[in-house]
Amino acid sequence: MQGQTIITTHDTDELLISTVVRLIKRNALPNLRNIIAKTHSADIARWFPRLRDEEKRSLFTLLMQEERMGEVLRDLNSTDIGEFIEQTESGAIASILHTMPADDVTRILSYLPEEKRVELLNLIEGETSADVGHLLEYEEKTAGAIMIPNFLALSEETTATEATERIRQLADVEMVFYVYVVDAENKLKGVLSLRQLVATKPGTPLKHLMSSHIYSVHTDMPQEEVARAVARYNLLAIPVINSIGELVGIVTIDDVVDVIREKNTEDMLNMAGTGALDITSRSILKNTRARLPWLLASFGGGLLALYVIRIFEAQLEAIAALAAFIPIIMGMGGNIGTQSSTIIVRSIAIGEVDIKDTWKVLWRECSTGALLGTTYGLLLGGIASLFPNLQEHAWKLPLVVTLAIFVNMMIAATVGTLVPMFFKRIRVDPAVATGPFVTTAIDVLGIFTYFWLAQLLLF
Amino acid sequence: MQGQTIITTHDTDELLISTVVRLIKRNALPNLRNIIAKTHSADIARWFPRLRDEEKRSLFTLLMQEERMGEVLRDLNSTDIGEFIEQTESGAIASILHTMPADDVTRILSYLPEEKRVELLNLIEGETSADVGHLLEYEEKTAGAIMIPNFLALSEETTATEATERIRQLADVEMVFYVYVVDAENKLKGVLSLRQLVATKPGTPLKHLMSSHIYSVHTDMPQEEVARAVARYNLLAIPVINSIGELVGIVTIDDVVDVIREKNTEDMLNMAGTGALDITSRSILKNTRARLPWLLASFGGGLLALYVIRIFEAQLEAIAALAAFIPIIMGMGGNIGTQSSTIIVRSIAIGEVDIKDTWKVLWRECSTGALLGTTYGLLLGGIASLFPNLQEHAWKLPLVVTLAIFVNMMIAATVGTLVPMFFKRIRVDPAVATGPFVTTAIDVLGIFTYFWLAQLLLF
Repeated sequence: MQGQTIITTHDTDELLISTVVRLIKRNALPNLRNIIAKTHSADIARWFPRLRDEEKRSLFTLLMQEERMGEVLRDLNSTDIGEFIEQTESGAIASILHTMPADDVTRILSYLPEEKRVELLNLIEGETSADVGHLLEYEEKTAGAIMIPNFLALSEETTATEATERIRQLADVEMVFYVYVVDAENKLKGVLSLRQLVATKPGTPLKHLMSSHIYSVHTDMPQEEVARAVARYNLLAIPVINSIGELVGIVTIDDVVDVIREKNTEDMLNMAGTGALDITSRSILKNTRARLPWLLASFGGGLLALYVIRIFEAQLEAIAALAAFIPIIMGMGGNIGTQSSTIIVRSIAIGEVDIKDTWKVLWRECSTGALLGTTYGLLLGGIASLFPNLQEHAWKLPLVVTLAIFVNMMIAATVGTLVPMFFKRIRVDPAVATGPFVTTAIDVLGIFTYFWLAQLLLF
Repeated sequence: MQGQTIITTHDTDELLISTVVRLIKRNALPNLRNIIAKTHSADIARWFPRLRDEEKRSLFTLLMQEERMGEVLRDLNSTDIGEFIEQTESGAIASILHTMPADDVTRILSYLPEEKRVELLNLIEGETSADVGHLLEYEEKTAGAIMIPNFLALSEETTATEATERIRQLADVEMVFYVYVVDAENKLKGVLSLRQLVATKPGTPLKHLMSSHIYSVHTDMPQEEVARAVARYNLLAIPVINSIGELVGIVTIDDVVDVIREKNTEDMLNMAGTGALDITSRSILKNTRARLPWLLASFGGGLLALYVIRIFEAQLEAIAALAAFIPIIMGMGGNIGTQSSTIIVRSIAIGEVDIKDTWKVLWRECSTGALLGTTYGLLLGGIASLFPNLQEHAWKLPLVVTLAIFVNMMIAATVGTLVPMFFKRIRVDPAVATGPFVTTAIDVLGIFTYFWLAQLLLF
């Protein structure tokens, strides 16, 4: 790669992608090679989701020939990685993986079926294989699984000059920003930044330079909490220690950024009720399969609502106009409930709210629900009272809908607050469990309240 | 701060916060001072959302005495920053701001009313004031507004030793990872990492060390796109250039992490229809005011649905059971529509999908909608046919609900796909415009379809 790149908005990307697709279709290899040579691997990776399967295969082959596949691989999504590994000879894959950092190899292998993973691990030789083997032993999505096992750890007596010499020798230590100081038992004693090392007198031993205040995490800490800690303390990397207190790896900020982005996609999809959907997959069947079970909650709730309305069928037969208010009562409740639950889920995620705050938050959400319920209840009551051919019920039907909106919005805000708090308390991810659950519960409660009020006041 | 901190899950945090609150209530200053001395400013900032107004005021005073307010201020949320500035004498604030990096000062000032901003800017002296003044001229949420104006830029002829010497002298350059090489006109020529500088021979001029391939952004690039670029290319900082190509600042990865987290909160709240709500605010009135207008869309849609049902009132009076299926038809449509729109909004946000992919994505979502619609339509039809006292309509009512679910889920998937794509096309943030819009549109369409099918087949 050569020359400066001023990053502009996506329009140039789009232009480039359509050019690439055209060149692949025409099999214009020299032109493609030329573009590939000038393009960052992260950008090449972004072509894949836009290509058809056969176009992907051509590009895989070309990247292998150009020896760029290794760099590109780490930025591909899980679907494309799976596809590449499926159609490439294991020896060739192993020699690519051999050149990659252990944490990336671990992530890639974690996408594969057990059998393939073991096969590839056996084919990768030496240190990488041992490192990856260790990392694979940690539970997925923990500090241990995402850490880099090669980092710079030196003894207290090392001088700045010696440390500098070590940095010069090391080729495969990713992103050095910190030098860690350890004792003979590999326990963390201190940390200093590369900048401190640069700015010091050559002969100074590290123990005079290092800060002995260090933040670290255990190997089993969930990756989201690691990410939150790195973000909170503005670190570039955080050391990871094992159960006996040895320094075993570091998690770097570039991986933290990936964790944060991934977690956010997950949260949004979970709240929308699509589960662990692969957003990049073009497969209609996979898409359907991921979404089907989540709709079941909504279907079950719908059946319950159906049952409730059947109970009140006599009232409906007497006043058919009652049915006309079902959508607005459901809609207002559903929306305010989604507002409340999203606010709570997000507040929990960024650490602004904890289960201890339940009553405080519930009070705020309920009061908001009451204010909004009063506003929209009176508005709807006013509109209902203008309806022609409801005169026989005079002020009673408007009163029913006013009360129904008010009560339903209060209930919705309460349910929307308490459900995520409850899931947090039982240590289930609130985002996973909240979405369809909340709307469904609110629908059923809302309809029941409405008809119950109608029966009470109109009959 | 002294000693090592192994970051554990939030339980210790919670314990500490309740201790702090107790100590504040008792006005136990020596104990509080002791805790504050041992606590990272980012953690102190996290106490605030849990405190009452008068407790916050006591803590502000104490932090001022302990000279910790400067560090804490940058991690407070906008509400608490506003409160602190309101109740503190401007001279004292100015002297705190004077010690902070220009980008943090800019962000803090951007939360304040114009008048207060100008007053404080005049009180802050010297370089910081000039820097902040410049930064404030850039539009909010662009590269220019979030960049750091002090960075290390040297000429091509500088030697590694001279560069190292410069780093040693600089106190106020935040997070140095890269040394930028510029020409006499301050145009970017190259970049080298601190690690390269450390690992080289002392006399080497920078022009032999630097890489001349540099990614940079313009001052007016939206901050989300800057963040995406830094994440994509795994950078620690990205240089920012102005309209005439001069290097004017850098955006560092710690600010990128903040941008990503903030953007995600915004997207989720927008999709839930709560607008630019301050998630940390305890104010019920502010909460209500932010949410009221978004519910208006839902209210308007509800009125439309009401009108549609009134049109079909004759049919409802004839077959009251028709009303019982309204909730399930609305619920299934609403949920699949939310699924589709969330997938599209998120895919656009992470750059997996662009408006050029509209037809491909629409095909996938529609097919998914058709499959899910067939499944749940037949299921509901089957259940409906088991209903007692519907015998008079035999297979007709089950057929109506089967078709209604099928058609409605197709429509919902289509609307859920096209609405965010349309907003992207007209350059409105899809997350802002999608949420309540989509559900409301789907509700009205779904109810109309259902009754229209009923009229067609049953009467």
